[in-house]
Amino acid sequence: MNQFKANERKPQGFTVPLEEMLGSIKFNEQGLVPAIAQQHDTREVLMMAWMNLDALKETLATGQVCYWSRSRKGLWRKGESSGQVQKLISLALDCDGDTVLLQVDQTGPACHTGRRHCFFYEVAEDQVQIQGEVLISPEDLYKK
Amino acid sequence: MNQFKANERKPQGFTVPLEEMLGSIKFNEQGLVPAIAQQHDTREVLMMAWMNLDALKETLATGQVCYWSRSRKGLWRKGESSGQVQKLISLALDCDGDTVLLQVDQTGPACHTGRRHCFFYEVAEDQVQIQGEVLISPEDLYKK
Repeated sequence: MNQFKANERKPQGFTVPLEEMLGSIKFNEQGLVPAIAQQHDTREVLMMAWMNLDALKETLATGQVCYWSRSRKGLWRKGESSGQVQKLISLALDCDGDTVLLQVDQTGPACHTGRRHCFFYEVAEDQVQIQGEVLISPEDLYKK
Repeated sequence: MNQFKANERKPQGFTVPLEEMLGSIKFNEQGLVPAIAQQHDTREVLMMAWMNLDALKETLATGQVCYWSRSRKGLWRKGESSGQVQKLISLALDCDGDTVLLQVDQTGPACHTGRRHCFFYEVAEDQVQIQGEVLISPEDLYKK
């Protein structure tokens, strides 16, 4: 049974066991769902990345956000190379069970370019304009 | 040339023609990119849906958000059946050119369940709890 569809008319405060909901998540053909990270206090949308079931479970278990890296084909513990970790504040699933929304506390820049967030290419009429200062250069972010 | 990669180190305020950026967007195998809709003033994340290039261009041209419906396999002018439209305030692309962030002004509920937003399944320990009141019943939302 799809727990998302089955429970969508239930009232505020209604609960379902987490395991049942996890079993109903609609992962795509690669076994992934998109996960949106939002800074919990400023409510800035920081980035979007992907999670498989293992990444989702690890994130919930450890309270540190873990994605699936499609390029590296492995778990991606956010901040493992840059030091810029995401502490999990809360996690929600959407009505269809195919998207995750993370409320996080982001240390420093979330973006690999050293900017706070990834959405720095803003459309302005017939141009796209960079909006977002580099806080830490990529060389400094990824040096060991 | 990938305009996203090519321009990621440019300073705040730097501009690139929109057409060149649109040509570098990384659509998936179905020709789609995820699009996150955020209410521009409260900064609530309302929903995540998908856009193809036509939907993205129509959204920019009309100022009314248009997605691609994967179930109906057609353009989905948000609110066309429910009346709950999304007015576009601004649109940004991410560092990799594979995700869209929309700042919108949402009329009424964004979710097909009649709730303001789609992320009403919140994880609370080993349970998932419904957080979000139904503002308009689905029967009233979709009646003609």
